[in-house]
Amino acid sequence: MRNIKLILSYEGTRYAGWQKNQDAPTIELTLEKALFQILREKLELQAASRTDAGVHAQGQVVNFKTENSIDLKLLVRSLNGVLPHDIRILNARAMPGDFHPTLHNRGKEYLYQICNSPFQLPFYRHLSWHVPTPLDLQHIKNAVLHLLGTHDFSAFCNERALWTRSPLCTLESITLEKLPHERLQITVKGDHFLYKMVRNLVGTLVYVGCGKLNPDMIPVILENKARSLAGVTAPAHGLCLREVLIEQ
Amino acid sequence: MRNIKLILSYEGTRYAGWQKNQDAPTIELTLEKALFQILREKLELQAASRTDAGVHAQGQVVNFKTENSIDLKLLVRSLNGVLPHDIRILNARAMPGDFHPTLHNRGKEYLYQICNSPFQLPFYRHLSWHVPTPLDLQHIKNAVLHLLGTHDFSAFCNERALWTRSPLCTLESITLEKLPHERLQITVKGDHFLYKMVRNLVGTLVYVGCGKLNPDMIPVILENKARSLAGVTAPAHGLCLREVLIEQ
Repeated sequence: MRNIKLILSYEGTRYAGWQKNQDAPTIELTLEKALFQILREKLELQAASRTDAGVHAQGQVVNFKTENSIDLKLLVRSLNGVLPHDIRILNARAMPGDFHPTLHNRGKEYLYQICNSPFQLPFYRHLSWHVPTPLDLQHIKNAVLHLLGTHDFSAFCNERALWTRSPLCTLESITLEKLPHERLQITVKGDHFLYKMVRNLVGTLVYVGCGKLNPDMIPVILENKARSLAGVTAPAHGLCLREVLIEQ
Repeated sequence: MRNIKLILSYEGTRYAGWQKNQDAPTIELTLEKALFQILREKLELQAASRTDAGVHAQGQVVNFKTENSIDLKLLVRSLNGVLPHDIRILNARAMPGDFHPTLHNRGKEYLYQICNSPFQLPFYRHLSWHVPTPLDLQHIKNAVLHLLGTHDFSAFCNERALWTRSPLCTLESITLEKLPHERLQITVKGDHFLYKMVRNLVGTLVYVGCGKLNPDMIPVILENKARSLAGVTAPAHGLCLREVLIEQ
């Protein structure tokens, strides 16, 4: 049995997220159908991150098992030939039999884009959150210092009951980068993430940047596991799964 | 009579170009309708560049004349409130009565984006030409040197009969820039441009980059006004009108 790992990139705009859903097209269903067209097999897919509706990916990692001996370069070309243009397979690789994308990763890196200009520019409307209020980056940087490292991030988790793993997460880095056209990119790298955690972190950092929240409130929010004291959940369409850090 | 200049940005994907067309939605028609909703007036619009179907703009310049005394900041906000999200008004300004966007500009700057990777990445599929063959940038730079300055650019013009101005154009700069995700951006700044000239220049530079055309052929092509010796017309969706250089 071959255990094939795919790396894929997608623009999530048209999809109801990764996971299969009877009512709406999803990335999983679209990829399953494309694989069926080529391999004539109904395959079980596992993704490193079950991205929500509207969330994008530059480097989602997915695996499946098959007896098919197809050449992997041919598989990539064939899949890209039948998939819609908003989903691309970047790479396919045979992995050891026990490889599993959610178990064998040491973390993930997410990007979040904000369009911090008076008007949302057309080119970025599906890829960035439009925040017209000017953001104070120094305040945001001060807040970031309180978030780095290992904490109980319950305050940044929606629907905690859905989550079975520990609320302790380690954020290795959070970087802010100004992009052309008044865009701001926030990159968050960590060992694992709670449900909607990145969007809740970004919403909170935007509250800090707008002056609605003092950076020194972050330790209080963490300590009290107080979701209600933190900022809003930033919208899905600004979020992009950049990379799954696969264990070598 | 006020002479109002608008600067607008749009993603041209959904439109049959700038100019009104009875069969398809255009930028001009969409803007005309939005202005009618706010000013209750059927206005005549003039654009600095009648962009083709699929071409984008970061800084298109348009004017119209009106007796309406609306505050211009309010006009911008109102227009952005009724326009679809792929068209945004960035600025409105009252100009002298004789200002005309095609007559009173000293040139334009265009961007052309190429996705030079094996697969067209989802995020740039509407904004860049997918060229999977690796491009030799040094060869392209050598070709650029032959294009700078003043030449008869007839060889880079489609449907010459449509053009009434001189075929002499001065290209002030052509720059190549590598962007993240294996993208290449070509910026072309000049005093005026013939029909499809930027797309024909880019198609020719891509031929040079692929090794299909020797850079030293450029002077021969220019000299002979030989459209058939030059490269293909690059597709519209990679092109973006970056800026109209308005005379101060």
